[in-house]
Amino acid sequence: MAEHLSQSELDYPFKLLEYFNGFRISKVIFSACELGVFDVLLQSQKPMSSGEVAQKLTANEGGIERLLDVLVAIEIVEVEQLHGTAYYSSTDVANLYLAKSSPKSLHNLIMYYSQTIYPLWNNLVDAVREGKNQNERTFGLPSEEIFSAIYRSEEEMLKFMGLMNSTWVIDGHDIVTAFDLSCFKSIIDLGGCSGALARELAKEYPSSTVTVLDLPNVVQTAQRHFVQQDDTVQFQEGDFFEGEIPTADLFILARIIHDWKEEKNLKLLKKVHTACHPGGGILIVEAMLFENRRGPTMAQIFSLNMLVQTEGKEHPPSHYTRLLTEAGFRDAQVCRTGKSYDAILALK
Amino acid sequence: MAEHLSQSELDYPFKLLEYFNGFRISKVIFSACELGVFDVLLQSQKPMSSGEVAQKLTANEGGIERLLDVLVAIEIVEVEQLHGTAYYSSTDVANLYLAKSSPKSLHNLIMYYSQTIYPLWNNLVDAVREGKNQNERTFGLPSEEIFSAIYRSEEEMLKFMGLMNSTWVIDGHDIVTAFDLSCFKSIIDLGGCSGALARELAKEYPSSTVTVLDLPNVVQTAQRHFVQQDDTVQFQEGDFFEGEIPTADLFILARIIHDWKEEKNLKLLKKVHTACHPGGGILIVEAMLFENRRGPTMAQIFSLNMLVQTEGKEHPPSHYTRLLTEAGFRDAQVCRTGKSYDAILALK
Repeated sequence: MAEHLSQSELDYPFKLLEYFNGFRISKVIFSACELGVFDVLLQSQKPMSSGEVAQKLTANEGGIERLLDVLVAIEIVEVEQLHGTAYYSSTDVANLYLAKSSPKSLHNLIMYYSQTIYPLWNNLVDAVREGKNQNERTFGLPSEEIFSAIYRSEEEMLKFMGLMNSTWVIDGHDIVTAFDLSCFKSIIDLGGCSGALARELAKEYPSSTVTVLDLPNVVQTAQRHFVQQDDTVQFQEGDFFEGEIPTADLFILARIIHDWKEEKNLKLLKKVHTACHPGGGILIVEAMLFENRRGPTMAQIFSLNMLVQTEGKEHPPSHYTRLLTEAGFRDAQVCRTGKSYDAILALK
Repeated sequence: MAEHLSQSELDYPFKLLEYFNGFRISKVIFSACELGVFDVLLQSQKPMSSGEVAQKLTANEGGIERLLDVLVAIEIVEVEQLHGTAYYSSTDVANLYLAKSSPKSLHNLIMYYSQTIYPLWNNLVDAVREGKNQNERTFGLPSEEIFSAIYRSEEEMLKFMGLMNSTWVIDGHDIVTAFDLSCFKSIIDLGGCSGALARELAKEYPSSTVTVLDLPNVVQTAQRHFVQQDDTVQFQEGDFFEGEIPTADLFILARIIHDWKEEKNLKLLKKVHTACHPGGGILIVEAMLFENRRGPTMAQIFSLNMLVQTEGKEHPPSHYTRLLTEAGFRDAQVCRTGKSYDAILALK
C-alpha cells in the first residue's frame, strides 16, 4: 500500500487546504512577475514601502501591499518594519529567477503558465471526460491542430518560445552533460525552437556544429527575438514531419515525442534513423515517468498537461527505448537528472 | 531580516517550480471531486482499475488514469499493481473530506473554489492594478454590488452557501468553543447563511436559542436545501445593514466584517451594540492576520481574495478590538484557534 497523507489530517485537513490554495499561491507569484514587482525591488537601492512599489508600477497600494505580504509569507520577498512602516526587499532567489533582467529569469515560463496554461486547466474536467485537449473550449481553436493553437499569433508564438527558452536556461546544462556527446561533430536539434538547448550544447561541445531545425515561422521569430550576436548555433527552416531531415551525427528530440501519438512518433524516429550517420545517435529529452508510473509528480502533472493541450502524454523510459529499438536504434542508455527533464541516448 | 527560501534554490528552483505548479495540483483535486472519483472509489468494495473508474463516470480512461496517478503521487489515492494492472483505492482522508456523502465533505467548498474563485483569480493582476474586485471582468457583473454578484443565480447562491457550510463543518467546533458562551441564552448569527455555524452553537449550548438572520432569499434557500428535520436553529428574514436588528444576548458576525469598508462596519457594530442586551456580547469570527502582518499565509491569501471578490480585507485582531471599542463594546478577548478562523469576544 502506498504511503498516504498523515492521519493527523483526519483531525484537521491542513495539507488538503494547502493543496486547495495552491492555485492562489501560483497566481500571487505569477501576478507579481507580470506587474514587475521583482524588477522594481531589484532596481531599488534600498527596501521599499508598498506605497513606493505601487507608485512605480502605477498600481493600487492596498493591492500591492497584500501581494507583497503573501510573497513575504512564502519567503520570496523580505520585510523589515521601521517606525511602523513595512519596507520590502527582494531575495537572491527572486533576483535570480523572477526578475526579468536575470540571465536565469523564468519570466517567460511564468507568463505562459499564467496566461495560457492556467485558463486551459480551468477545463481539466472536460479534458478528462472527453480525453482530448481543451484548445477549442478555452480559446476557440480547433483541437486537432495543436501547433496552430500554440502558435495562433506572433504574440502567442513568442510566449511559447519564451517558455521553452526559460526551461533550457535552468535545465539545459544537466541535459547536455547527461552523456558525453563530444564524439558527435554535427548535431541537429529537431524542433529546437528558440535555440536555448542548442546553445547549451554548443557551449559544452565547442568543436561540434549545432543546428536548430524548426518550422519557417518559428525560425524567423527565433532570428528576430532570440538569436544573439555571434550566435553559436545555426538555424534551418524545415518541417521534420512533412519534409526532409538533413543528415547529422546526432539528433536531439527534446519535448517533441510527448506531444504526439505513438504511430506518428514511430514514423518520425524511423525517418531520423535514416538521416543519422552510421555510428551516430539520437538524444530523447522528456520528463520521464517512473516505470511503475508512481511518479515523479512533476512528470505526472506534465502528462495531464499533455492531455489538456496536445494529443500526447509522458511515458516511462521503457516506452522510449522500445520505440527507439523499433526504429532501428540500439544501445539505449537512460539518464535521470533528478530535476524536471531526463535523457535517453541511443546509437545507430 | 526574514527567513527566506533555502539557498539551495539558487542551484535549482525546486520549491519555486512547486509553487508554479500549485494551480495544477489544486485543479487535479478539484476535478477529481467534480467528476465523482472519490465517491466511486468509496462505494466500490474493492480497488478499481482506471478503466473501471472511467466506465462508472463515463469519462476517458487515459484521462482518468493520469488524474489518478497524480492523486497517488500526492497521497490522496492508493494504488497496487496486480498482473501489470494498477488498481486504485481511496484513503481515509479522501473518504472523510472529498467524498460527497461524508458528513465532513468539503465538496461544496471545492466546487466554489474551482468554478468561481479559480476564474476570478485569473484576473489578480487587474485586481492589484485597480484595487478593486474582478466580478465585472470575470463574470460581467457590477463590482459595487458584491452580494448581487455572489448571489447572481439560485445555483450560485447554493454554491456559495455550500462553501460556507463546508467551512463550519470543519472549523465550527473550534469557533464555538473558543470561549465559554453558555451564559448567553439568546444568540443571533447575523448573516448566518446555511445555519452551519449556528447548529454548532446549538449543539454546544443546548440551553440557548440560536437564530440565523439573513436576507430573505438566503433564508428561503437555506430552508429549501440546508434545514434539517427537527433543526436546532431558527431562521429569520432581515437585512442587518438596511433593516432593524432584533435584540439578543449574543451576536455572531462570522466572516462579515472582512467583506466591507471600515465606515460601513463601524455603523453595523454600533447598531449591534444598541440591539445587544446589557451584559451581552458580540463574537467576531475571521481569519485574523498577525499584528505584524507577517502571516498566517492563509489569512493573507484570504485578504487578497477579498480584494478580488469584495470591497474588504482581512485584519489583525487590534483592528477589530479598536472597532469594537469605538462601537461601545468592552473587554475584548482574542482567541487564535491555530486553524483557519479565529474569534474575538467583546461585552456590552
